[in-house]
Amino acid sequence: MRHVTIYDTTLRDGAQAEELNLTHQDKIHIAHKLDDLGIHYIEGGWPGSNPTDQKFFDEIKGHTFKNAKLTAFGSTHLAKSTPENDPVLAGLLAAETSVITIFGKTWDLHATTALGIPLERNLELIANSVGYLNERVDEVIFDAEHFFDGFKNNREYAIQAIRAAHEAGASRLILCDTNGGTLPDEVAEAVKAVTEALPEAQFGIHAHNDSELAVANSLAAVRNGATQVQGTINGYGERCGNANLCSVIPNLQLKMGIESIGSENLSRLLMTSNFVSEIANLRPFMRQPFVGASAFAHKAGVHVSAIQKDSRTYEHIEPETVGNEQRVLLSDQSGKSNILFKANELGYELKKDDPTVDRLLKELKLKESMGYEYSVADASFELVLREALGKPLNYFHFQNFFVVDAKREEDAEPFTEATVIVDVKGQQEHTAATGMGPVNALDRALRKGLERFYPRLSEIRLLDFKVRVLSGAVRDTGGTASFVRVLIESGDRTDRWTTMGVSHNIIEASWQAVVDSINFKLFKDDHKK
Amino acid sequence: MRHVTIYDTTLRDGAQAEELNLTHQDKIHIAHKLDDLGIHYIEGGWPGSNPTDQKFFDEIKGHTFKNAKLTAFGSTHLAKSTPENDPVLAGLLAAETSVITIFGKTWDLHATTALGIPLERNLELIANSVGYLNERVDEVIFDAEHFFDGFKNNREYAIQAIRAAHEAGASRLILCDTNGGTLPDEVAEAVKAVTEALPEAQFGIHAHNDSELAVANSLAAVRNGATQVQGTINGYGERCGNANLCSVIPNLQLKMGIESIGSENLSRLLMTSNFVSEIANLRPFMRQPFVGASAFAHKAGVHVSAIQKDSRTYEHIEPETVGNEQRVLLSDQSGKSNILFKANELGYELKKDDPTVDRLLKELKLKESMGYEYSVADASFELVLREALGKPLNYFHFQNFFVVDAKREEDAEPFTEATVIVDVKGQQEHTAATGMGPVNALDRALRKGLERFYPRLSEIRLLDFKVRVLSGAVRDTGGTASFVRVLIESGDRTDRWTTMGVSHNIIEASWQAVVDSINFKLFKDDHKK
Repeated sequence: MRHVTIYDTTLRDGAQAEELNLTHQDKIHIAHKLDDLGIHYIEGGWPGSNPTDQKFFDEIKGHTFKNAKLTAFGSTHLAKSTPENDPVLAGLLAAETSVITIFGKTWDLHATTALGIPLERNLELIANSVGYLNERVDEVIFDAEHFFDGFKNNREYAIQAIRAAHEAGASRLILCDTNGGTLPDEVAEAVKAVTEALPEAQFGIHAHNDSELAVANSLAAVRNGATQVQGTINGYGERCGNANLCSVIPNLQLKMGIESIGSENLSRLLMTSNFVSEIANLRPFMRQPFVGASAFAHKAGVHVSAIQKDSRTYEHIEPETVGNEQRVLLSDQSGKSNILFKANELGYELKKDDPTVDRLLKELKLKESMGYEYSVADASFELVLREALGKPLNYFHFQNFFVVDAKREEDAEPFTEATVIVDVKGQQEHTAATGMGPVNALDRALRKGLERFYPRLSEIRLLDFKVRVLSGAVRDTGGTASFVRVLIESGDRTDRWTTMGVSHNIIEASWQAVVDSINFKLFKDDHKK
Repeated sequence: MRHVTIYDTTLRDGAQAEELNLTHQDKIHIAHKLDDLGIHYIEGGWPGSNPTDQKFFDEIKGHTFKNAKLTAFGSTHLAKSTPENDPVLAGLLAAETSVITIFGKTWDLHATTALGIPLERNLELIANSVGYLNERVDEVIFDAEHFFDGFKNNREYAIQAIRAAHEAGASRLILCDTNGGTLPDEVAEAVKAVTEALPEAQFGIHAHNDSELAVANSLAAVRNGATQVQGTINGYGERCGNANLCSVIPNLQLKMGIESIGSENLSRLLMTSNFVSEIANLRPFMRQPFVGASAFAHKAGVHVSAIQKDSRTYEHIEPETVGNEQRVLLSDQSGKSNILFKANELGYELKKDDPTVDRLLKELKLKESMGYEYSVADASFELVLREALGKPLNYFHFQNFFVVDAKREEDAEPFTEATVIVDVKGQQEHTAATGMGPVNALDRALRKGLERFYPRLSEIRLLDFKVRVLSGAVRDTGGTASFVRVLIESGDRTDRWTTMGVSHNIIEASWQAVVDSINFKLFKDDHKK
């Protein structure tokens, strides 16, 4: 079986993504997670180019990895210096990694325009830099920047450039589609040409996604002989991002029969994807292939009834192979069969002709037209379902809340206080609390009142809090008077659940979600053991 | 020059996306925008399958389109009926479109498992349905569902199925990668085989993105002879979505030299993409190829200095051809050259060794570590820049605010009131206002106090209000006490600007963004005429 090594550059090229800002500590956490996934090479950053990368390399020296080799990234030496007195190469060696990756120019236009040096001198920079480093570390990888543009513009020179790196001892020559403008057939042609020109060299591919072809280009290169793929988790990267390893790896292993991280590690793919987006504080892309929340989610009624017969009818792989799972969504399009499926999943035995189903469908449609989205808030859905079944929860009843935010100094946070009155088992509880903002104060005041009756509420942890402004959906007002939807994800030692609220008023929307979360916690402890 | 027709299914397959919910009115707006873009076929929905699609087809009968043909989508007739008494075909004809698209089974497993009928009967359903409709409308398109899976499993039967549609008069045979699991080389092979088997037929491709290969698969089909591409704007669709027309079209036109919507229409691509995401109320995907906000955004210092010499060095096409533009981003990685570029863009002449640049860089780094993200809030950046230059704005000074939210009935919205004290030109203004939520009340109270002095503030419209919970970035608290970042986009008759605030307290974060927005309005009217 063929084997391809995976080279991750999330920490370097990935960190160039517009929305992404990683601290050196974030980068260390991610590096270990990549190691757990079985990634072969982890590019940590460009030592010396910025304080974050410097701190990362300083601190990670003491760490050990199970599988992965850590690499430092940089450029060939400056045109005005020699390898011996060059600050870039010195910075790379100071990082003390066993592998160093350097990029060099292979597009003639780039050498003359961006560097402003003769073509011959550029070949010297490559050969001298690779040769110098190769005597000092275990392995030097050469990234042929803009290789495909160079190949199109001046094929002979592009090959000369990688030949220089190869002869100076580079372990691998990585063909970079730096601008992301190359088509898969062009990649295939170029890879064929270089493997003919340099039959003893090992090639890799580093693709960018500017034409939405980075995954296809990576696969085309492997099909034609490349033995390494460079990319990032979730495809993060400069401009439109890099080749998405979360798609490249399963395509190689499940579709092309090419080994990379192994099938056991493959099942950690979703977890790794989520971990990185969480650390990066980026909202996961729902439609992301293989690992996205929507990747195996079925909404159309036709599809839902077919997958119940045979999941291959609308799923290209088994979701579990990449750590994902099948989901069935609710929406007014999906009709009764999805509601029945969902209700049965939750343990409510409903028949198609039960009048509750019609009542529920009507209620859900009304709520969804207001901005509620039950497909993302299972716990709130179950509470609505119970109402429709005539089984509402009665743990406590709302009577009153009052929240104050007062700010007196320009550079200080406002003072926030909330009071809440609820009726619990016939007793009126009146509590007050301060907080970090109005929602936090309300949350704390409510729990103060309830924990006396339900001590297990202290187990709830609020894991995530999301606010979505629905300005597009509700066009009547807009601006600071827009509708907002709040989603709260809560958890305790055994479960996680998501609840929702919608209102013009963010405090009211948050309150609804908090109340649902508390109700769901009490309900599931009583009924779902 | 070769020509390929574009068939858009945003309104049908796109609407199957998990997060997408369109009203019939939304669908009508989008249909006209697609027509403006020069799309050749617009699939409106499945008449009769749900109330939204039904209303859409009822209402759109009176509309005319400049270029596009509207199509109604449905299935072959039911196994238990004949074309004449079949409800599906009757529903399609009732929509009164000149083109009808029907899908049929071409994967033997699907015919026997999902439909539960003999293979022969399935061929009859296809031939009878296409034939019946073909006598009643101008054009019938046949979507060969699961064609590639069928081709792999039973090549002969898959070809029999499309031959049946062809012989019954279908204008085009669309090869569908319904599960999205096919690789580009497999698509190429299948397209070659069917064009050999049915040399007189016209073929199209309908790809799904489950392997992140939908664009590559569409291009592979065209390269091998397909003359129609089906897809959606922004790639919306069931599970991981459909082939993204915003990438397929520019790749065809700019990379492969194949005509589709024409180059003038191509420059409307970004506008169309934004329009659809706005109507759908989905946050645009920043890293989206060609039309994404990050597609031509440069962050790395090396790249910024190179594109200033020649934009081809890091851009695969001219952004303007698809209606996009080049952007330079600020971040602690980018260093001084980006700050200088940005400041000069705003008209501040700063030299690299000016001590203000260091001060500004330090201030920006501090703020960014707290969660501020100046790359998305140009107006707030300019205000920080002015502070660093020792030129703060003095239109008004904060003294005090006080906001109350009180809720007394379970199903009612809370009552909200804010009071604000500001010092304007030495005078103390104390105002009060109610609002739809606390931020709206504060906004209204503040403006009440200021409009007496600055009547032109009444021109400000708040266009968008976004809330981002920074729970990942700030780990100390989490849950309802998370840090939040508020972005406000404001506009008047001539300009649009974005401002920002960050705090634990959503009211404080919103307040900062509102104050910046008002200051920026006054400042730009005074200084940017």
